Amino acid sequence: MPRSTFYKHRIAFADCDPAQIVFFANYFKWFDTSGFEFFVACGVPPWRDTAQKGGIIGTPLVKATATFVNSATYGEDVVIESWVAEWRTKSFVQRYRITRGDDVIMECDEVRIFAARREDGSIRALPVPEDIRETCS
Amino acid sequence: MPRSTFYKHRIAFADCDPAQIVFFANYFKWFDTSGFEFFVACGVPPWRDTAQKGGIIGTPLVKATATFVNSATYGEDVVIESWVAEWRTKSFVQRYRITRGDDVIMECDEVRIFAARREDGSIRALPVPEDIRETCS
Amino acid sequence: MPRSTFYKHRIAFADCDPAQIVFFANYFKWFDTSGFEFFVACGVPPWRDTAQKGGIIGTPLVKATATFVNSATYGEDVVIESWVAEWRTKSFVQRYRITRGDDVIMECDEVRIFAARREDGSIRALPVPEDIRETCS
Amino acid sequence: MPRSTFYKHRIAFADCDPAQIVFFANYFKWFDTSGFEFFVACGVPPWRDTAQKGGIIGTPLVKATATFVNSATYGEDVVIESWVAEWRTKSFVQRYRITRGDDVIMECDEVRIFAARREDGSIRALPVPEDIRETCS
Repeated sequence: MPRSTFYKHRIAFADCDPAQIVFFANYFKWFDTSGFEFFVACGVPPWRDTAQKGGIIGTPLVKATATFVNSATYGEDVVIESWVAEWRTKSFVQRYRITRGDDVIMECDEVRIFAARREDGSIRALPVPEDIRETCS
Repeated sequence: MPRSTFYKHRIAFADCDPAQIVFFANYFKWFDTSGFEFFVACGVPPWRDTAQKGGIIGTPLVKATATFVNSATYGEDVVIESWVAEWRTKSFVQRYRITRGDDVIMECDEVRIFAARREDGSIRALPVPEDIRETCS
Repeated sequence: MPRSTFYKHRIAFADCDPAQIVFFANYFKWFDTSGFEFFVACGVPPWRDTAQKGGIIGTPLVKATATFVNSATYGEDVVIESWVAEWRTKSFVQRYRITRGDDVIMECDEVRIFAARREDGSIRALPVPEDIRETCS
Repeated sequence: MPRSTFYKHRIAFADCDPAQIVFFANYFKWFDTSGFEFFVACGVPPWRDTAQKGGIIGTPLVKATATFVNSATYGEDVVIESWVAEWRTKSFVQRYRITRGDDVIMECDEVRIFAARREDGSIRALPVPEDIRETCS
């Protein structure tokens, strides 16, 4: 089994929309945070530090595929499990599962890259760093 | 060609993250707004009104598949085109394409349902209303 | 000393803007959540339940006064202390203080009301419920 | 009368909370965007460009005082007027008024600074640049 981390969140009033349920874009925000915490838990330095050395500025998305199984509302506690399901040469698949107790709320696969900034300000994909791959598997 | 609408947005400073690019979850928020405006443009009443008659409370997602092609940053103007790519019995596929001038920024397919609320507060899928299907095709 | 609660938050990448610091509007979101959790901790039922009985639908703001003392960035842990600094007849002052270790990040006073919905959908202020005042002081 | 700009926004479903009204923190986001557009309209370059020359990285807040007069909901069109009400040596007061037709929704005064980054990454206030003051008055 690959290494995974668990990120807890109590759903806030402001996370929900007029239909009284979580506004779905917030799930993607939590995934992002959960994925970030995953790398921190694996000992990878914050992108702020790597960016200052001309390296990784973050892990922008290439693709996302999400399945919404159940709705959730404010006051409920959810857990977001996060792990790397696949390492590729220039990208990786980060997988997430949100649960509330035994209920799955949502599942998501994200294809992401390690990005650096070119001198003109644009963004390019770095090869997956070997040391990150090792500590995060 | 199916009916489509165009939603314009100037990217705000607050839409962007420390990597200086749009935080990706915001794209989903704009899709949602764009899709909502699509129904309004087709003459469908706001969910607030339909909800009060015990009907549709919104169009929650079942599935989303997004491809991120280019990044974008604040001060840039983007256009989100929105249309229904497929009508099914109890769901529909809403398709979006974000462009900045000639550049595609992102594309997304969302499977959504028309939702009503049960008496116990939970949510159920309604059959796609025939009148909505007709005016929105 | 009035009763107070403490709400912990680790600042997320997505909470920050291109200046690498927390986008300030997020502080208000956390205040809202912190204030909501304050009422929950005091034993007040969620607004979802009170709303269904024709009662309180939430505690909208009348006024907010915020002082920003220090900036904060992602990966940092902050604590939001929340209490009611003053009870009035039809409103109350909720006070917040965000700290990171010994540093104050921000302080805020919010004047809020207990709101109910009129039959026409508009919102009106309720007198401060005596039982809420008692359990939250 | 000082120079002012007008920023239009149609309130989105996702801007609203379970009480069916705009979640108040979003107003601050719109103020920020409105204030940013104010400087752009006055001919000030984006902070991205000034930051690259070691200059202004943004205009963080020191203080905000907001009064909430009326609530608003999705589908409604609001206009945010924005101007500088007062120029000080190291800060300025940006004032906002949100209206929906003839109704005032909210008013806000923000004390902001022009910020630059120190070598250690922390933030310091710059004196108000004379050229910005002239073009924005």
